[in-house]
Amino acid sequence: MQSFQPPRRILMGPGPSDVSPRVLAALSRPTIGHLDPAFQDLMEEIKAALARLFNAPDHACVPLPAPGTAGMEAAIMNLLEPGDTAVVCVNGVFGTRMVDMAGRAGASVITVEDAWGAPVDPAKVEAALAGAGAKVLAFVHAETSTGVRSDAATLCALARRHGALSIVDCVTSLGGVPVDAAGWDADVVYSGTQKCLSAPPGLSPVAFSQRAIAAIGARKEKPRNWLYDIGLLMSYWGGEGGRTYHHTAPINALYGLHESLVALFEEGQQAVFVRHARMHEALVAGLEGLGLEMLVAPDHRLPQLNTVKVPGGVDEAAVRAHVLDHWSLEIGAGLGPLKGQVWRIGLMGASATPWHVRLCLTALADALAAQGVASDKAAALAAADALLTA
Amino acid sequence: MQSFQPPRRILMGPGPSDVSPRVLAALSRPTIGHLDPAFQDLMEEIKAALARLFNAPDHACVPLPAPGTAGMEAAIMNLLEPGDTAVVCVNGVFGTRMVDMAGRAGASVITVEDAWGAPVDPAKVEAALAGAGAKVLAFVHAETSTGVRSDAATLCALARRHGALSIVDCVTSLGGVPVDAAGWDADVVYSGTQKCLSAPPGLSPVAFSQRAIAAIGARKEKPRNWLYDIGLLMSYWGGEGGRTYHHTAPINALYGLHESLVALFEEGQQAVFVRHARMHEALVAGLEGLGLEMLVAPDHRLPQLNTVKVPGGVDEAAVRAHVLDHWSLEIGAGLGPLKGQVWRIGLMGASATPWHVRLCLTALADALAAQGVASDKAAALAAADALLTA
Repeated sequence: MQSFQPPRRILMGPGPSDVSPRVLAALSRPTIGHLDPAFQDLMEEIKAALARLFNAPDHACVPLPAPGTAGMEAAIMNLLEPGDTAVVCVNGVFGTRMVDMAGRAGASVITVEDAWGAPVDPAKVEAALAGAGAKVLAFVHAETSTGVRSDAATLCALARRHGALSIVDCVTSLGGVPVDAAGWDADVVYSGTQKCLSAPPGLSPVAFSQRAIAAIGARKEKPRNWLYDIGLLMSYWGGEGGRTYHHTAPINALYGLHESLVALFEEGQQAVFVRHARMHEALVAGLEGLGLEMLVAPDHRLPQLNTVKVPGGVDEAAVRAHVLDHWSLEIGAGLGPLKGQVWRIGLMGASATPWHVRLCLTALADALAAQGVASDKAAALAAADALLTA
Repeated sequence: MQSFQPPRRILMGPGPSDVSPRVLAALSRPTIGHLDPAFQDLMEEIKAALARLFNAPDHACVPLPAPGTAGMEAAIMNLLEPGDTAVVCVNGVFGTRMVDMAGRAGASVITVEDAWGAPVDPAKVEAALAGAGAKVLAFVHAETSTGVRSDAATLCALARRHGALSIVDCVTSLGGVPVDAAGWDADVVYSGTQKCLSAPPGLSPVAFSQRAIAAIGARKEKPRNWLYDIGLLMSYWGGEGGRTYHHTAPINALYGLHESLVALFEEGQQAVFVRHARMHEALVAGLEGLGLEMLVAPDHRLPQLNTVKVPGGVDEAAVRAHVLDHWSLEIGAGLGPLKGQVWRIGLMGASATPWHVRLCLTALADALAAQGVASDKAAALAAADALLTA
């Protein structure tokens, strides 16, 4: 057993994305105690930065000490208990996962199904909520498995109108497109660090509204999770009464998250969103220049997660292996019904740069040529460059 | 908001312990994808190293992507469901926590209480198990809140004799004193990374016996945790059938754990245990030389977690603040009924060195002097040195 030296990769899959040198450097700063006064200051800065990024000034914001799925589990296990009904929207892997978790919480679940590759249909949600007496409406803002963005403002408004609390999965959206907890009047919003924040995987920022916290306070049973019991977590992350020991925070991972937030605000939120949008437009122009087709209709595409249809006769796994082996480039495969049907190309955080767009187009053209598919690489790169340099 | 530069600390509290430069360096290696073939190799090495360290060659070993409490929650939520009975031993904070979790799992709980500072009494456990039809016996091997080691071999044998599965909390023991899952015939053993492994907090190595896995397979309901559902986790961490996507593993944290395991096996497990024992003996000799008294009887002391009684008239918080401010040294406070009564001094992993022992004694003598308590610092250091240089 020897020290592990990872190969150099360029990460353009569905996450993790490339982690910048400044965030990697932050991870290796000396560990301090989780009760150290200096660490308390770091926690306060992270909470404030997350509140700003979620636009959740009145929510309780904390980073859970586990990957993005912990945010989903915390949302569901804190809001739902036996006797409750949840309406859960399913248009990809992560909606499916929410249904499973809501069942484990003991709730009755009404599912609203949409095609993988289509957004959640508000009309179906409205029909499901009507007369259901649902306590919760849960949906995915940015479906990582399909590259689709659903209309969070409209869906949260439907929840409010029907007296339900909203749970919004923003794992892939946060830091790539606007997340607006206050504007949406959303109740629980959660994300992960390894997508558009470009920190390593392992943390899940969450925001709980005061309305959600009141509902949790009125539960009959304790939440089924202890580690993600929001009441216990909020006591640890500090309030007026000081901090109560709960778990031991993942100190060095939080150094990394903090640094990624510093970098994001240095660049500016609007600049970050514009950068993601521009890289996306250039990548799509280039992909179409290679003769490839996008899965999702233009209005519902996520700039940070691009699903590309695999052309007939092409071995999709061989293409991914080719770009990994020859270009050190990671792109993602399809999941579930999209397995073998699409590639998923991430343009997230530090991976959303002109260099990444050009590398990806070049590598894909090369891999397609290796499969005997002719394409005009020069024209595709020119189409992308026209937008990158505009 | 600016980049965070942590102060330099020497960590001799109940965890995290000092993280060595080689582990810090490993954390900052470039992030790769969690489905990368190179990452698969890393996972296999970590699983094998954990099986060796737990002495659990036939258990399923994985590091959960969250702090040590996740191991506790995984053990309890996977083994217990409504209708089950658990016997839970309480002689400190962590036994108390297990009782809370077992209730959240829907189980009936029989508690076996012992004093904080005493080990679990096997006679009481035997009486509680007799005729209870308990599915689980849960106890803490190394109570971090008191510095007590309980007799895991005897307690696991009692569980077996009464047909119960054993859950053994080894958060503070692993890497400091022998953990012997096979020898004890233990069913679920779990730990954390920020104690004697001297990696940052954030991961929880767990080992599940084949008997435990069979019992989980026979559950009536799904486990109430999704993220720590051992069936799903084992599919992700790879078996014969390849890997099924579950969560996104915390890549860089796993680089750190891997490096800490490499370092441990380079030194040798027996050498590591001897080092912890020697530093403990020297520290105790020095503390007694300063006129201080240990909480725990010699036979039940953990070398890696030393609870020291606060002398009458001494402001315990002022002493901790003094050593932090003047010596950059972190030591821990008492919890629960021991709050204000003890200090907790860790000698864990990279913090178990002669340098740490001498620094701690020097700083404590200085802090006691600031409180007007006279002590013979030179004699105390000489008593420690006699053992350090023996």
